[in-house]
Amino acid sequence: MSIASLLPLAMTAATLGEVPIAAAVVAADGTVLATAHNEVEAEGQATAHAELLAIQRASAARGSKYLEDCTLYVTLEPCAMCAQAASLAKIQRIIFGAYDPKGGGVEHGARLFQQPTCHHAPEVVGGVMEAECSALLKAFFQQRR
Amino acid sequence: MSIASLLPLAMTAATLGEVPIAAAVVAADGTVLATAHNEVEAEGQATAHAELLAIQRASAARGSKYLEDCTLYVTLEPCAMCAQAASLAKIQRIIFGAYDPKGGGVEHGARLFQQPTCHHAPEVVGGVMEAECSALLKAFFQQRR
Repeated sequence: MSIASLLPLAMTAATLGEVPIAAAVVAADGTVLATAHNEVEAEGQATAHAELLAIQRASAARGSKYLEDCTLYVTLEPCAMCAQAASLAKIQRIIFGAYDPKGGGVEHGARLFQQPTCHHAPEVVGGVMEAECSALLKAFFQQRR
Repeated sequence: MSIASLLPLAMTAATLGEVPIAAAVVAADGTVLATAHNEVEAEGQATAHAELLAIQRASAARGSKYLEDCTLYVTLEPCAMCAQAASLAKIQRIIFGAYDPKGGGVEHGARLFQQPTCHHAPEVVGGVMEAECSALLKAFFQQRR
């Protein structure tokens, strides 16, 4: 799994009218437990972000509420909801694509994992293939104007 | 709807081995769109918090991702995940019971709605029936020791 290999799934989301963001949860042995793209429009749910869906599907696939050995890959910096979801599920590591100064909650805004009350802070690697991930989002929003 | 009327639902959660927290989403006209208690154990999902479930069920009931006229009632201060979920769904107001200095994300920790990047900050009324809501939680955790 890699951020690059998530880009086609993010593009699929765009063709469905969803904001092009894709995520995956991968176990320590490389097993892809779940993938998801944004489903806000399809589900009519403001909370149907790719990361939250991927975490929930990974827990379902594994039959475990905790995903302690897992890495969450996502094409955009998670918002505070998804970051806290990853913390609650004890995700080990988050690798994300584009930084999100307006909506991100990891390296921006709430900076959730840097709060003294954060019980479990995943390792974070941000800005992977930043240009490609953010180009996808820019193209999507430009087209909608 | 009131915090008091949510206490029996929180107690039901405790009898099922769930942390006793209950939530409801209520429309401006008083219609209760959804109620939920924590379902972390039953669902095997770390993210199955009462508030997130109530918001998702309310959106499903109404067929709308936005709940702009709605109030979220919950017996405990929401965590950052649930607070951000309420913001994403454009919940108008949050009324909560006990403050949660360790896990809360509204008046503690990330203080999500006070971040300059918060796009929609619901009104907040906290500490309603604080003693009763927090007694329920304390009794639950004492019994489990």
